[in-house]
Amino acid sequence: MLRFELLATHGRARRGRLTLNHGVVETPVFMPVGTYGSVKGVLPRDLDAMGAQIILGNTFHLWMRPGLDVLRRFGGLHRFERWPRPILTDSGGFQVWSLGDMRTISEEGVRFASPVNGDRLFLTPEVSMQIQTVLDSDVVMQFDECTPYETKGHVTTEAEARASMELSLRWAARCKAEFERLGNRNALFGIVQGGMYEPLREHSLDALVAMDLPGYAIGGVSVGEPKDEMRRIVAHTPHQLPAGKPRYLMGVGTPEDLVDGVANGVDLFDCVMPTRNARNAHLFTRFGDLKLRNARFREDERPIDESCTCHACASGFSRAYLHHLERCGEMLAPMLATIHNLHYYLNLMREMRDALDAGTFDAWRARFEAERARGV
Amino acid sequence: MLRFELLATHGRARRGRLTLNHGVVETPVFMPVGTYGSVKGVLPRDLDAMGAQIILGNTFHLWMRPGLDVLRRFGGLHRFERWPRPILTDSGGFQVWSLGDMRTISEEGVRFASPVNGDRLFLTPEVSMQIQTVLDSDVVMQFDECTPYETKGHVTTEAEARASMELSLRWAARCKAEFERLGNRNALFGIVQGGMYEPLREHSLDALVAMDLPGYAIGGVSVGEPKDEMRRIVAHTPHQLPAGKPRYLMGVGTPEDLVDGVANGVDLFDCVMPTRNARNAHLFTRFGDLKLRNARFREDERPIDESCTCHACASGFSRAYLHHLERCGEMLAPMLATIHNLHYYLNLMREMRDALDAGTFDAWRARFEAERARGV
Repeated sequence: MLRFELLATHGRARRGRLTLNHGVVETPVFMPVGTYGSVKGVLPRDLDAMGAQIILGNTFHLWMRPGLDVLRRFGGLHRFERWPRPILTDSGGFQVWSLGDMRTISEEGVRFASPVNGDRLFLTPEVSMQIQTVLDSDVVMQFDECTPYETKGHVTTEAEARASMELSLRWAARCKAEFERLGNRNALFGIVQGGMYEPLREHSLDALVAMDLPGYAIGGVSVGEPKDEMRRIVAHTPHQLPAGKPRYLMGVGTPEDLVDGVANGVDLFDCVMPTRNARNAHLFTRFGDLKLRNARFREDERPIDESCTCHACASGFSRAYLHHLERCGEMLAPMLATIHNLHYYLNLMREMRDALDAGTFDAWRARFEAERARGV
Repeated sequence: MLRFELLATHGRARRGRLTLNHGVVETPVFMPVGTYGSVKGVLPRDLDAMGAQIILGNTFHLWMRPGLDVLRRFGGLHRFERWPRPILTDSGGFQVWSLGDMRTISEEGVRFASPVNGDRLFLTPEVSMQIQTVLDSDVVMQFDECTPYETKGHVTTEAEARASMELSLRWAARCKAEFERLGNRNALFGIVQGGMYEPLREHSLDALVAMDLPGYAIGGVSVGEPKDEMRRIVAHTPHQLPAGKPRYLMGVGTPEDLVDGVANGVDLFDCVMPTRNARNAHLFTRFGDLKLRNARFREDERPIDESCTCHACASGFSRAYLHHLERCGEMLAPMLATIHNLHYYLNLMREMRDALDAGTFDAWRARFEAERARGV
């Protein structure tokens, strides 16, 4: 099931509530990424404590490991990874596409060799729906071809982007048919493609809206394009999607990207940035970003951010201590950094929801930008 | 300060209470090892929740990184690593000894090149006391030479072990003098050496007892000797130490070693085994040990140990899930394994304290051995 209520709007920005089979999600929301059934570096208990409402899993990775036999035995991903709240899974399309020369794309689907054991595999819209049904994902993404911004220096032309987008539309129809045939009771989202070309985005959007799916995503952004290109598409597409359905901007982004996305009417985001950057000692804060490896933190007794209420900051771990842990390669460095960064992202969304509830989103945004520019 | 109360005895086994400047420690106790100011893979909050009473730090490592200037700024190790309870530190002797060809031992101390930046350094009994005073360790260990069991295939002779033990005794006297000169208000422990030779152990013990230190350790075991040699020394030395003072068996060991140590009158233990083995997917349980990488766990829906109350077991993470995380190199595998193993070790000690309180240690021990032999 999926129910979406629009609670408030402010310009294009929206405050909503999404009800899925495993629970309620207040939007706009950030979804931490749990590729292999684990959000890297953090206990599910701590994810829950910091207010994560919905997390991602990657269909391709979970298909490879642990494999469908194991996931079927556990009745899906929720029980396997001990996360009782909603889960969204991607379709596997982006991952097989990323295999480059190791895969062949045809009308039927994508042939490739398993990077784990070399098995010859075939991922199609139907197979993607079958896997996501085994996973019991609350939100199932259509199998699509993620149109690249460029390939080995060649920027995708409009004709290439059109052909790719049209293939994704044909795959969307096959996904819908298979999803229904399987009797899946969760929600299938379509993905708007079309590269950096607005007319193609509109064509994709119209065709998907005509399919009357319960939600829509904007794909093919944050794939290596210049930031202003991304901003152009984010300003163009989301607000044209049906107002009564949730909108998901895939794989985005920095704190500034999230704020820009919300301002443009996006409801859901996911990105590996808070977790991956944490493992690279890159911390996000209200007052700008902080690189723990910088020697200036060697004797710094302050927490990462005095105004932050995450476990790492509230427990008083100092920048000097975190710098030391990072330098010594101690696991506690990425553990605390992951808690901090995810808390920052989740809290950023919470602040936006509160500002939308209170009708003060513009003032909130001005303060956000001023504080981020201040520097730590 | 140090106060030690003997609450109960059972044969040679003892139930005690150790009061240190940062708190009370119920003995017998296991001390998790936090080499660089972090017990690897676990948040201090979780260490506290699982009942850790006292943890270790390594003087040599902390001297190298973060360095004394940083530790002095934080007023010692407790505030730096956010651990308010007692801390014991070793003397640095074992680590400089481990540098092998990179160090030179003389009567005065040990000259070596810093493995971090190549600086030429000189560690002496006095310097060790000075560093441990900056760390504000609740228990300060004397600087000693850890007599090796063998060196490049040559088993240490009685004459070599005697010379080494006598050097450690002279260093103990220098440590005591420097500790007093510094006005250190914590507690200095002497270390009984003498290799695998009982007469040397007795000589060392008598000389140290004559110095009237507040506690004593048994060093130079668990350094590569055959298990029966270790058991022989553990059966020989601890119970001859003064009954009214705490006894610490350094660097030991397996669950069976801890039980054997307690039965022989040991009060304190430390070892990297629970944390290091966790990172190698080796789990300790009541019913024997479990190697997570074993393919037989691929579909195993059971927790590590159904009778265990640690966060990993009580939250229902399955062997299949942990096997999967380990296979994928996910950080959550060592995180959950560390919680489980430390909980197992701390709980093992808790069970022994309870059995000593109840006067049922022999029965407890028989059950422990039968259960461990059962297999998971």
